Amino acid sequence: QGTRDHPPAQTALRDRLLSAVVSCFKRHGAAAIDTPVLELRETLMGKYGEDTKLIYELQDQGGELLALRYDLTVPFARYLAMNKVTNMKRYHVAKVYRRDNPATTRGRYREFYQCDFDIAGQFDPMIPDAECLKIVHEILSNLQLGDFIIKVNDRRILNGVFAVCGVPESKFIPACSTVDKLDKVPWEEVRSEMVGEKGLSPEAADRIGEYVQLHGGLDLIERLLQDPKLSQNKLAKEGLGDMKLLFEYLTLFGITGKISFDLSLARGLDYYTGVIFEAVLLHQENEHVEEPVSVGSVAGGGRYDGLVGMFDPKGRKVPCVGVSIGIERIFSILEQRLQASGEKLRTTETQVLVATPQKHLLPARLKLISQLWDAGIKAEMLYKKDPKLLKQLQYCEVTGIPLAAIVGEQELADGVVKLRDVATREEVSM
Amino acid sequence: QGTRDHPPAQTALRDRLLSAVVSCFKRHGAAAIDTPVLELRETLMGKYGEDTKLIYELQDQGGELLALRYDLTVPFARYLAMNKVTNMKRYHVAKVYRRDNPATTRGRYREFYQCDFDIAGQFDPMIPDAECLKIVHEILSNLQLGDFIIKVNDRRILNGVFAVCGVPESKFIPACSTVDKLDKVPWEEVRSEMVGEKGLSPEAADRIGEYVQLHGGLDLIERLLQDPKLSQNKLAKEGLGDMKLLFEYLTLFGITGKISFDLSLARGLDYYTGVIFEAVLLHQENEHVEEPVSVGSVAGGGRYDGLVGMFDPKGRKVPCVGVSIGIERIFSILEQRLQASGEKLRTTETQVLVATPQKHLLPARLKLISQLWDAGIKAEMLYKKDPKLLKQLQYCEVTGIPLAAIVGEQELADGVVKLRDVATREEVSM
Repeated sequence: QGTRDHPPAQTALRDRLLSAVVSCFKRHGAAAIDTPVLELRETLMGKYGEDTKLIYELQDQGGELLALRYDLTVPFARYLAMNKVTNMKRYHVAKVYRRDNPATTRGRYREFYQCDFDIAGQFDPMIPDAECLKIVHEILSNLQLGDFIIKVNDRRILNGVFAVCGVPESKFIPACSTVDKLDKVPWEEVRSEMVGEKGLSPEAADRIGEYVQLHGGLDLIERLLQDPKLSQNKLAKEGLGDMKLLFEYLTLFGITGKISFDLSLARGLDYYTGVIFEAVLLHQENEHVEEPVSVGSVAGGGRYDGLVGMFDPKGRKVPCVGVSIGIERIFSILEQRLQASGEKLRTTETQVLVATPQKHLLPARLKLISQLWDAGIKAEMLYKKDPKLLKQLQYCEVTGIPLAAIVGEQELADGVVKLRDVATREEVSM
Repeated sequence: QGTRDHPPAQTALRDRLLSAVVSCFKRHGAAAIDTPVLELRETLMGKYGEDTKLIYELQDQGGELLALRYDLTVPFARYLAMNKVTNMKRYHVAKVYRRDNPATTRGRYREFYQCDFDIAGQFDPMIPDAECLKIVHEILSNLQLGDFIIKVNDRRILNGVFAVCGVPESKFIPACSTVDKLDKVPWEEVRSEMVGEKGLSPEAADRIGEYVQLHGGLDLIERLLQDPKLSQNKLAKEGLGDMKLLFEYLTLFGITGKISFDLSLARGLDYYTGVIFEAVLLHQENEHVEEPVSVGSVAGGGRYDGLVGMFDPKGRKVPCVGVSIGIERIFSILEQRLQASGEKLRTTETQVLVATPQKHLLPARLKLISQLWDAGIKAEMLYKKDPKLLKQLQYCEVTGIPLAAIVGEQELADGVVKLRDVATREEVSM
């Protein structure tokens, strides 16, 4: 349940998508690492908040207690701590596992690919953070997914908001996860969850509401930096100062047009400590697709400066910031678009079919195809002793093989091969 | 235990190796599929003989009972049956899981990559089988792993041998797994296991011994086809006839020099029904490596005509033959060879570092690098506001970046960029 087989056409499309993402990661100088699908259970515990219950655990068959990784971020942090790496720019494309309620039409599965890019190390503020946003911008632009916006916020600003609104620190995390729902439900509902379920005072909730419904750009940052209450809060001030710096860098990158400083963005995971961001596709009329897939967030990430320290025996911290591309959702869109366009993706790369027009010529085919393979040419033949020429040419048409290398009795006698362009039926002897 | 992280240098080497294997699979016209790491437990049961105990099972957390795949062959057969595919040439490169005793120095892990190529469908005999052997030959030759031999046998011949030697059919499988040890221990030990543990009569064991110690080529096939006892056995005769045909095809491919018809080859898995084969590297002096890794089998496979039918509700069979490349063992050899050669593999593909020689030029660097990324150029910069030029050039040397694009006050004033060849220190303004 919630997993799927990928037949060749899907795999070909997915490979194309993954290679576009990976080539962006490589363009930014990232190295690849690989970690096991299996992690110690204790490594994953206490990292995912309420979602810890969604972790797949392996049966105790003797030996270590294991689980399937839930994301690629926690394994990366464990890798850095275990190997005492304090400085690394890496990407990782691999499957992760979540015992979630699958919603397969919206690209939500229990086994799915993640494409992560992370920068670990102590650097000058906001330079790596800005690069992560640039990467999201490049990938979404290059894939031509339509209009999008990247929401940006900072956990320090959110916590500052909660503090100045009179929320006790013990309720920051529950308040945070309630705020995060603002992209799906109206403020009134969020407010009543805060007061009802999370036990905030109505006054605190109202004050929060004045902040978290704000979104804008540099102007909003400047305004909040002058805000009489918020500017007195150390965390919020730090966060707003860094946000301003981030916007300077994003202006130099020329991408602020797609960036929205949005105080309602909270993100669910416990481990974020600074900048957080999430890219969403904007709903639009699409002339090629009758029922557009509703996909929501297609990339997200943020800064997590405390996670590596949780795996280090001495608690040594390695600051990190990273982004994860929601490849499955993007895949759903591309797949639907491909179907609507009627374009057929080839699932093989075969350049030439080795064919014979008469019987008893299998040896000639085997000899020729062997020579082609040894010369690095992608070649196929039918696995029949005496296939009809028509069948062989039809196979080319169905699978998209552009050329047929035909060797018949005459060709054998003349020591030549007849090369046929399947589409135009043009033939040359060579 | 038995798993490992791959740091960037290993990942780069493995990616190179995998892409060599995949490009051979593509050269032979295979399409890629992908299946989940998770399979239903019942799918995997009864397919691996004694090794079923090595399957990783997931904890029952409600819902289906799951396990991690043990190989890529059983999931492929399940895929064919579920999707009613009767004809397919596919490759699949992915991780599999075995709760085995790890022997990591010999490249034996609990999580490891398999690279499988399989041909499913009803075809004329031995044509797909011959192609599988050609593929093993191509891959091992192209990787320049040193001398190797591909042992070939047929389960029908082995079963015929057991029958004519007086082994009851119920003991064919235990006898088979005992014969399989002949590549590691002398015949005397194998014989005593047959008589002692497996309960064969000493006479039967001796008669088996006369057959299974034979190996050779076409001459041996011809001799056995004339063997007074074996030629009377229907299965053995079929197997020998096909083996003769296989050798004809392999002769046309020009690869019989590396092929040995070896009656001791049995292979452990239950599901083989016809041709089986295994490639081993021959021990050799290697001038570059002080302690050569002992690796044994580096590829194996065979024909399994009954497996797909086990997953079809109506038992419809789809004949299959395939090969699995033992990538981890090959990786161990290549890694050791690389270490011995002192060659350093680059882990990134960065073409140019964007650098500044004076302070307060971060905006210039951000602007330039953004232009380079947008132009598809692989570029990096240091994440510092004011790094020293020397530090920036040292970073190029350490990571192998060939070019530095330097923009200083003078260059800004002149509207140029200075491009520096890191190795030769040559500079041009552009």
